[in-house]
Amino acid sequence: MWRQQFESHYHPSPAQERKETGRVEALSDGVFAIAMTLLVLSIPIPSRDAFLNLKQPTTLFDFAVIRNSTWLSYIAYVVSFLTILVMWVNHHSMFQFLGRIDRFFVMANGLLLMMVVFVNYPTVLVADFIGTSGGTFAATALSGTFVIISILYQALWRRIITGGRLLASDVDRAEVAQITRQYNFGAPVYLVAFALAFFSPAASVAVTAGLAIFFMFTGRITRRVVPRRQEEEHQHAEAHHQPPA
Amino acid sequence: MWRQQFESHYHPSPAQERKETGRVEALSDGVFAIAMTLLVLSIPIPSRDAFLNLKQPTTLFDFAVIRNSTWLSYIAYVVSFLTILVMWVNHHSMFQFLGRIDRFFVMANGLLLMMVVFVNYPTVLVADFIGTSGGTFAATALSGTFVIISILYQALWRRIITGGRLLASDVDRAEVAQITRQYNFGAPVYLVAFALAFFSPAASVAVTAGLAIFFMFTGRITRRVVPRRQEEEHQHAEAHHQPPA
Amino acid sequence: MWRQQFESHYHPSPAQERKETGRVEALSDGVFAIAMTLLVLSIPIPSRDAFLNLKQPTTLFDFAVIRNSTWLSYIAYVVSFLTILVMWVNHHSMFQFLGRIDRFFVMANGLLLMMVVFVNYPTVLVADFIGTSGGTFAATALSGTFVIISILYQALWRRIITGGRLLASDVDRAEVAQITRQYNFGAPVYLVAFALAFFSPAASVAVTAGLAIFFMFTGRITRRVVPRRQEEEHQHAEAHHQPPA
Amino acid sequence: MWRQQFESHYHPSPAQERKETGRVEALSDGVFAIAMTLLVLSIPIPSRDAFLNLKQPTTLFDFAVIRNSTWLSYIAYVVSFLTILVMWVNHHSMFQFLGRIDRFFVMANGLLLMMVVFVNYPTVLVADFIGTSGGTFAATALSGTFVIISILYQALWRRIITGGRLLASDVDRAEVAQITRQYNFGAPVYLVAFALAFFSPAASVAVTAGLAIFFMFTGRITRRVVPRRQEEEHQHAEAHHQPPA
Repeated sequence: MWRQQFESHYHPSPAQERKETGRVEALSDGVFAIAMTLLVLSIPIPSRDAFLNLKQPTTLFDFAVIRNSTWLSYIAYVVSFLTILVMWVNHHSMFQFLGRIDRFFVMANGLLLMMVVFVNYPTVLVADFIGTSGGTFAATALSGTFVIISILYQALWRRIITGGRLLASDVDRAEVAQITRQYNFGAPVYLVAFALAFFSPAASVAVTAGLAIFFMFTGRITRRVVPRRQEEEHQHAEAHHQPPA
Repeated sequence: MWRQQFESHYHPSPAQERKETGRVEALSDGVFAIAMTLLVLSIPIPSRDAFLNLKQPTTLFDFAVIRNSTWLSYIAYVVSFLTILVMWVNHHSMFQFLGRIDRFFVMANGLLLMMVVFVNYPTVLVADFIGTSGGTFAATALSGTFVIISILYQALWRRIITGGRLLASDVDRAEVAQITRQYNFGAPVYLVAFALAFFSPAASVAVTAGLAIFFMFTGRITRRVVPRRQEEEHQHAEAHHQPPA
Repeated sequence: MWRQQFESHYHPSPAQERKETGRVEALSDGVFAIAMTLLVLSIPIPSRDAFLNLKQPTTLFDFAVIRNSTWLSYIAYVVSFLTILVMWVNHHSMFQFLGRIDRFFVMANGLLLMMVVFVNYPTVLVADFIGTSGGTFAATALSGTFVIISILYQALWRRIITGGRLLASDVDRAEVAQITRQYNFGAPVYLVAFALAFFSPAASVAVTAGLAIFFMFTGRITRRVVPRRQEEEHQHAEAHHQPPA
Repeated sequence: MWRQQFESHYHPSPAQERKETGRVEALSDGVFAIAMTLLVLSIPIPSRDAFLNLKQPTTLFDFAVIRNSTWLSYIAYVVSFLTILVMWVNHHSMFQFLGRIDRFFVMANGLLLMMVVFVNYPTVLVADFIGTSGGTFAATALSGTFVIISILYQALWRRIITGGRLLASDVDRAEVAQITRQYNFGAPVYLVAFALAFFSPAASVAVTAGLAIFFMFTGRITRRVVPRRQEEEHQHAEAHHQPPA
């Protein structure tokens, strides 16, 4: 059943490449979307007693002051949502360079999705435990999850570019080198947040939050903008069975 | 990695534009669908004791009378579901005018999705707290969420039209001006509901519910209906590598 | 912004029709998929105490006997899942006849999705309350939800066919008439289950379950199988800008 | 309404086949993605008391030691996620051979999805009950679910290949025979795990986990890689209304 697809006579067109990677991308998008959305369930509903002794109308601000843990869960929701959003943008960019898939890639991508979904769990831990004796546990769980995700992103990227096996056919090698440098940056930074959690859980979470915002303002939206001329020639050639000039 | 895509020699065809904005739209659709669906989890299951002292068969109506808070959660579910539905229609319409994306747009759209998902939380609050001392908190949370969403819609729309940077290539300028006027309408109206929450939480929620129904009956389903003649010429030109006449 | 799309000179090709209805279908598919999946959360996890007094290894069967309510929740899960599956097949079939959308259709489809998602709630009620004093409440909630869904399906179908406004261009009128007869069948049958709930909640749920299984074995998988000859002519005409003969 | 689609004069092109099976595949993908993602909700949040008597910062490891049941829920999450991932890969491969759908296939596929979603429930059971008197119940529920899933996969596969009714038009018969042999392998192996649960629940879960990892490293990523030459001829023929040579 294993087609000999990496042989030299297999030269898929860009349209064929897109079809081959498309369903893995669609599943990944679904998982990212649901992982983002489930985060809202991590925000606890306050008990009615919390408002019993209030004399005046209770606003969001009053509420934040008197029930600090719920306030923390807002922060945790925002940080985790934005981090998963940035990871989705990264994932999307990576797939722009992907021309083929193999079993290693599909399975490693599955592990990545497993960790992205798992982010939900340390998010609840942070909301519940920061400022308590379980703070270090919560902060190490959050930053540790991001360390593993960074490593998995690197593994996927290396699989794509090593030997050019899974690389799409029309990519710019300079861009590839630049992205490789970027991926080397993620894991060490989250390792610092992980180590920091043993001294100050709150500082560790703050670093994680800062990274999400930093990536939001510096993240790259990669598109393989095929020059129009070339695309038309491709279509022309495919439609009329003539090789491009 | 940043392609110079806003340069004058980048003239994407409508098909290319659709592909470029398509994946952001697909992720957004997923998040909207899940946000709508998760709302059902906000409806609390009554305890068995609620029915112990009932002599006759208990209908939905009896139940609504004797356990008012669950009844409220039905209302809250309907209002939030319809509001997210209307927001999805708006989002879909906005994307009809979108020809390109940039980082600002992707990230602001992510913040919008974050708030759309968040609607789940004030929905539960309203079901739990209206009529209690926490009513103002619940009503301000709900209307406040919609104020922020309105502002984010405006920010996205302004990004699209300012300088025409992200605007699709074949839109009608009169339509754009009309939509701009509409978006100026949303935030102030929800601000009124927000202010009202400090005097009467129930009235604030009623205004929010009324707005959802109002938008359902007046909302516009925008389609960029490309005239058939023109579309065929586009296809003709692309397939045969001849410029349209 | 309202395009005059129902004018006589608007003759969309089947491909254009598919694009116009596609995003509403995609959102609906997402909601159906999530509504099915969330049902699993309605199955309660037994407490550890349930197994304390057991001397022998506890199998699924033992468990079902000693904790009847959990057993009921399996049944409720299966019935609701299969019913939503059948509703999805129906929805898919309906969209095969849809050529255009308008605001009424989008909003009524939204109400339908709202009720499909709501099925989750009476499913939990049935698992919790059948056999208790709340049984009638649970059974009326389940069958009542399906009554409303049947009515919404009819409303959508009538909107599509009345005056042929939203009807796709190449449908068979005999098929349309046959489907119209089928849709007249749904609401009355579920009304019987609703009425039955006041006398015997269990019998009402059994009828609902029977209907799901009946529809599974008789449901139609509709496809607009465009004859190959005709499709090629369409493609030919569109690609070469010649009207079909 | 039932088109006579299995008649001899119905010879769909590969593109038509893909369209016909596409929406069932899209719904299935959505359900798989959500089933994976919901698993994270099965991980219980520890109570704050768990950390009260800890003198030193609590790490993930300390936590795992002192609260074994939460540690088990990590394992259960990983095993179930990876198993559903492998099942998704299988499902994707199966659809590569699918050219048409009929009611039996759609409904049996729905039953399969119902069981895939159900995996969530025994996952929670395993995390909660392994090592307690309910261990056998949990282990039989998990392995039993996989037995049923294996049988449903076989039923779907047999429906596809029997008489070639639903089989895509351009498949390799040798590949089909090889896959048939593989599907005969799944159900017996999970039956062994099921039987083992009555003697050692933990061993049964370990076998299930081992199978997931085994399938990850041996699973096949099937693609119907249409030879490029042939695809172009198809496109050529379809566009110009000439039969392929």
